[in-house]
Amino acid sequence: MKNVPIKSSITHIKPGEIKVRGALIQDLMGIHTFSEVIFLLLVGKLPNVHQARMLDAVLVSSVDHGVNAPSAFVARTVASCGSPVQTCMAAGLSAVGEHHGGAGEACAQMLQEATQQNPDGNIEMIAENIVQEFVVNKKRLPGFGHRVHDPDPRTVRLFELAEQEGFYGRYLNLMIAIQSQWVQQTGKTLPINVDGAIAAIISELGLDWQLGKSIFIIARSAGLAAHVHEQMSDGKPMQFAPPVEILDENLKAE
Amino acid sequence: MKNVPIKSSITHIKPGEIKVRGALIQDLMGIHTFSEVIFLLLVGKLPNVHQARMLDAVLVSSVDHGVNAPSAFVARTVASCGSPVQTCMAAGLSAVGEHHGGAGEACAQMLQEATQQNPDGNIEMIAENIVQEFVVNKKRLPGFGHRVHDPDPRTVRLFELAEQEGFYGRYLNLMIAIQSQWVQQTGKTLPINVDGAIAAIISELGLDWQLGKSIFIIARSAGLAAHVHEQMSDGKPMQFAPPVEILDENLKAE
Amino acid sequence: MKNVPIKSSITHIKPGEIKVRGALIQDLMGIHTFSEVIFLLLVGKLPNVHQARMLDAVLVSSVDHGVNAPSAFVARTVASCGSPVQTCMAAGLSAVGEHHGGAGEACAQMLQEATQQNPDGNIEMIAENIVQEFVVNKKRLPGFGHRVHDPDPRTVRLFELAEQEGFYGRYLNLMIAIQSQWVQQTGKTLPINVDGAIAAIISELGLDWQLGKSIFIIARSAGLAAHVHEQMSDGKPMQFAPPVEILDENLKAE
Amino acid sequence: MKNVPIKSSITHIKPGEIKVRGALIQDLMGIHTFSEVIFLLLVGKLPNVHQARMLDAVLVSSVDHGVNAPSAFVARTVASCGSPVQTCMAAGLSAVGEHHGGAGEACAQMLQEATQQNPDGNIEMIAENIVQEFVVNKKRLPGFGHRVHDPDPRTVRLFELAEQEGFYGRYLNLMIAIQSQWVQQTGKTLPINVDGAIAAIISELGLDWQLGKSIFIIARSAGLAAHVHEQMSDGKPMQFAPPVEILDENLKAE
Repeated sequence: MKNVPIKSSITHIKPGEIKVRGALIQDLMGIHTFSEVIFLLLVGKLPNVHQARMLDAVLVSSVDHGVNAPSAFVARTVASCGSPVQTCMAAGLSAVGEHHGGAGEACAQMLQEATQQNPDGNIEMIAENIVQEFVVNKKRLPGFGHRVHDPDPRTVRLFELAEQEGFYGRYLNLMIAIQSQWVQQTGKTLPINVDGAIAAIISELGLDWQLGKSIFIIARSAGLAAHVHEQMSDGKPMQFAPPVEILDENLKAE
Repeated sequence: MKNVPIKSSITHIKPGEIKVRGALIQDLMGIHTFSEVIFLLLVGKLPNVHQARMLDAVLVSSVDHGVNAPSAFVARTVASCGSPVQTCMAAGLSAVGEHHGGAGEACAQMLQEATQQNPDGNIEMIAENIVQEFVVNKKRLPGFGHRVHDPDPRTVRLFELAEQEGFYGRYLNLMIAIQSQWVQQTGKTLPINVDGAIAAIISELGLDWQLGKSIFIIARSAGLAAHVHEQMSDGKPMQFAPPVEILDENLKAE
Repeated sequence: MKNVPIKSSITHIKPGEIKVRGALIQDLMGIHTFSEVIFLLLVGKLPNVHQARMLDAVLVSSVDHGVNAPSAFVARTVASCGSPVQTCMAAGLSAVGEHHGGAGEACAQMLQEATQQNPDGNIEMIAENIVQEFVVNKKRLPGFGHRVHDPDPRTVRLFELAEQEGFYGRYLNLMIAIQSQWVQQTGKTLPINVDGAIAAIISELGLDWQLGKSIFIIARSAGLAAHVHEQMSDGKPMQFAPPVEILDENLKAE
Repeated sequence: MKNVPIKSSITHIKPGEIKVRGALIQDLMGIHTFSEVIFLLLVGKLPNVHQARMLDAVLVSSVDHGVNAPSAFVARTVASCGSPVQTCMAAGLSAVGEHHGGAGEACAQMLQEATQQNPDGNIEMIAENIVQEFVVNKKRLPGFGHRVHDPDPRTVRLFELAEQEGFYGRYLNLMIAIQSQWVQQTGKTLPINVDGAIAAIISELGLDWQLGKSIFIIARSAGLAAHVHEQMSDGKPMQFAPPVEILDENLKAE
């Protein structure tokens, strides 16, 4: 291909020199943790100790959710068909959409946009408007509700750590306010799920909401690696493709 | 689908309870770093402080290598076509094959298998045999040589940190012995590249060689996230598809 | 996994029996062409001879657009990294987004929704409203304009064949009316591109606009297969990742 | 990026001109079927009427195998998570590995290599050697055996059509000879599956065995498109991720 000027401010390479966001890579290695360098890559500067701890907790909260998470199930299925590791991981991560791991991004967008449109606004009022809009349009509130956990132990812990590390600010308060408003306007309670807690915390950490899915993907790549390795070590070819039973069932469904 | 018994020992879920390798997730969050939990997921137990530092250095060494790395280039191209984050990341990671990020796995396999076949063997002799086989078959030694860096600053730093943290053992010595043997048998010098250094270190850490590509993928997912975000924020649609000039060039190539 | 009732009306399997949309597969083979069976799969019934010819022309028009098409470029890059065929094809198809191969779907949606909202409406008025909306919102009209071709030889041929096979109906007329309206409202001419021509034709054929990207993907998978094969046969490892020159250029770009 | 000379002989583009394997695209459209142009792309020249019919039958035989085929199941799962069409298709096709759709390529390789090594050899002897090797190494013969079908109606029909169209040559005879040898050497019967029948036929058609997976992918992309569309139209979010029941089962499995 011909010259396509790509202006990038992430990493620059010369023979014998690799600079990540301006820092020599050998000066990061052995000094900074992986999550500190993730912060550096995504935010453009190294985190302080509180930001680093908070990001670590966010990433740890999202590493895995068992074989039934669609991303794990897809990655294992592709592994059982004989494709290599990178292909299993790629297929698994393809499942990180609106309904699986993507709610954090949608929730962070909701929080950040509502706050930007009304930077000095009263949190209760912002929450009221948000809930009203969702109730009127009969849409699901991103970051609230979970199929299995109520309360979600990860949410509880993230709020606790946010308090401890000094990140219980505007965005976490807005989540609580939205939750209260939901009760008031619908008469129903609704737990904050882990995606919602993460959405509020990455907003406190200064991350763009458009990084929401990426944070989940970076974290979950660790869990998927474990699943693919387990499948390749212990699993059977075509393990998830029942040859006959399900077929009968299907025929009945006609 | 019908009952497909998936026996997994990674993560188990009950309402209100998530256990990763037997540990409650809220007890990992805020206590352990992301890389400590990556170690837990892949090895089955938490690392000690030296193992954790070493894994952090390995992951940091692989986070990014600029816009020209095929994985970054692919991810940005897919982003410029309008596909969502998960799709860009998946496509980028699909490029982690034998020639890009995959050499670490091949090198770790070579090191671990040679050592297993000859657990008490003399390192010099093992190295001699390995090099002989590659020289005779005219194959490329995985983990050696680099298109840009000689020496690779990441390799230098990883060996330094391995010494410092107590991981300068059998596998690192084997890499050095292979390098010497190469000079002896071919008369040419050959730098240990970052993939080779990582291969030796993850072997020292007790990781199965089949996790080689996964370690790279977990690390590089951070860099790809930064590239995709930059491309979506600053890039242009179809940025990497020159419409005409290249076409003429192509025609000349007929 | 536990019983997840999947009610599907596509293909049903019993030992020794495969029925696609109700037809025994051996009765389709040797009798119907591949594109006739594509029509069967997507529409639910076999096409008549005119529909079959029209769909063939649509598919042929989209098989390939050279090495510079982002999907081909991505597929070849992934091939040059050492990943297997299925992974190269998957990565290449991931690039079929809004800006590459996706305009047909957007255009078909525009045509079908405008027509459904106004089934008996005057075509000129529908076109006027559509153009007005795009002009006011300063958005790009999907299905119009091309970086290389004006006119696009594929568009010319598709309109010609549509006339010949009896599909020059409401949707093609609407495309022409939109084009005229664009000149009237903006003073500028705008060619109908191949995506726009296809959008109109698949609408005439009774295909749901949500199949727009799929039609492109099915067709382009043929071109990508040729590119991946050529790359694997003649190409070099890491062929698309220039190691140094571009880096200097990059640094200048800082 | 800097000039990377890509020498391609597939498709060349100039403003207003698209040439596929030397033919103007408008001269292919309306004259040749999609499968004829697939043949042109993969083999480099247009097929005669018998080759075209044979390739059509091969493609039709592989379009779909119901919701339980891992590729369909993966594509539908990814769709139920909210990812777009191109991502669902890419993830589904990622499952085309050694154990799903990949046996045809392995079988074609076996047939073509055995024949090339022994171009004038006696077919019975070639078959004897092949079977001996697999029996001694206790490996599965690619292209033989099926979990559901015995005989496979697609195999029966493909052999019938090969006879009719004049492709019952060396490769089909070799498949039959291998099947007989298997009985002789093991005392067990083994059906030729559809992958094996296709492997022999594409070899008769002059296709490189390395195109084996691609032929399957091109065909199956049609079935996956139908599955993704059905899932998006009728399916539910996270449909394939049972939240609780399976979890209990999992816990029992510990």
